[in-house]
Amino acid sequence: MVIRKAADVESTPVHMKGVKDVTMRILVGRCDGAPNFSLRQFTVEPGGHTPRHRHNYEHENYILSGTGQVFYEDAFHDITGGDVLFVEANQEHQFLNTGSEPLEFLCLVPVSFEAGGGQMEPTPGS
Amino acid sequence: MVIRKAADVESTPVHMKGVKDVTMRILVGRCDGAPNFSLRQFTVEPGGHTPRHRHNYEHENYILSGTGQVFYEDAFHDITGGDVLFVEANQEHQFLNTGSEPLEFLCLVPVSFEAGGGQMEPTPGS
Repeated sequence: MVIRKAADVESTPVHMKGVKDVTMRILVGRCDGAPNFSLRQFTVEPGGHTPRHRHNYEHENYILSGTGQVFYEDAFHDITGGDVLFVEANQEHQFLNTGSEPLEFLCLVPVSFEAGGGQMEPTPGS
Repeated sequence: MVIRKAADVESTPVHMKGVKDVTMRILVGRCDGAPNFSLRQFTVEPGGHTPRHRHNYEHENYILSGTGQVFYEDAFHDITGGDVLFVEANQEHQFLNTGSEPLEFLCLVPVSFEAGGGQMEPTPGS
């Protein structure tokens, strides 16, 4: 069993085009031997945002604290602590912190994704 | 996209041998079309516990609030809000609320498990 405090997990800046002031912790992932999915925690600072992008695997999210918006299909939707999201594969999405406190959320992904021609590859950040 | 408040999801009592005062919400699951894993929230009332059991699929857990213990490999480990667990397949485990407030935690499972002879079946409660 792995048992750890989320706050003790190394927090690393997310470097992707279109990202502003976002850090990530891999709470449980491939390095732990997770066979199917990876549990990550993201922190978006006030005014920051994740990239507006899409990929061929899903997200499941739990908002821990803070307030913000999720962009999805040409509209912004308010999010706050205790909200849950399921972002299906291939749908454009983005998380934005519109509040004054850090926006903290869990973001789950499968550990592998279909990279073309039936080839499975490790999901980035898993 | 699915977007909902966890508190608005129907809470159902968990009826299994060895369970005491536990309810569950399926926050994102098979019914939403989740292709790989299911996000559930469990509430264990003070003095309550989940069954002490094992199964051939993993858990990934995030403790939201409350205090308790997890039994794993003949030992009890303290857990509280912000703790993260990875319970590997086939390992005996149990969650117990040893505090005075509800113990709330997220518990992720794959949506399917190997039921013998290579047959995949829906994971209970996914």
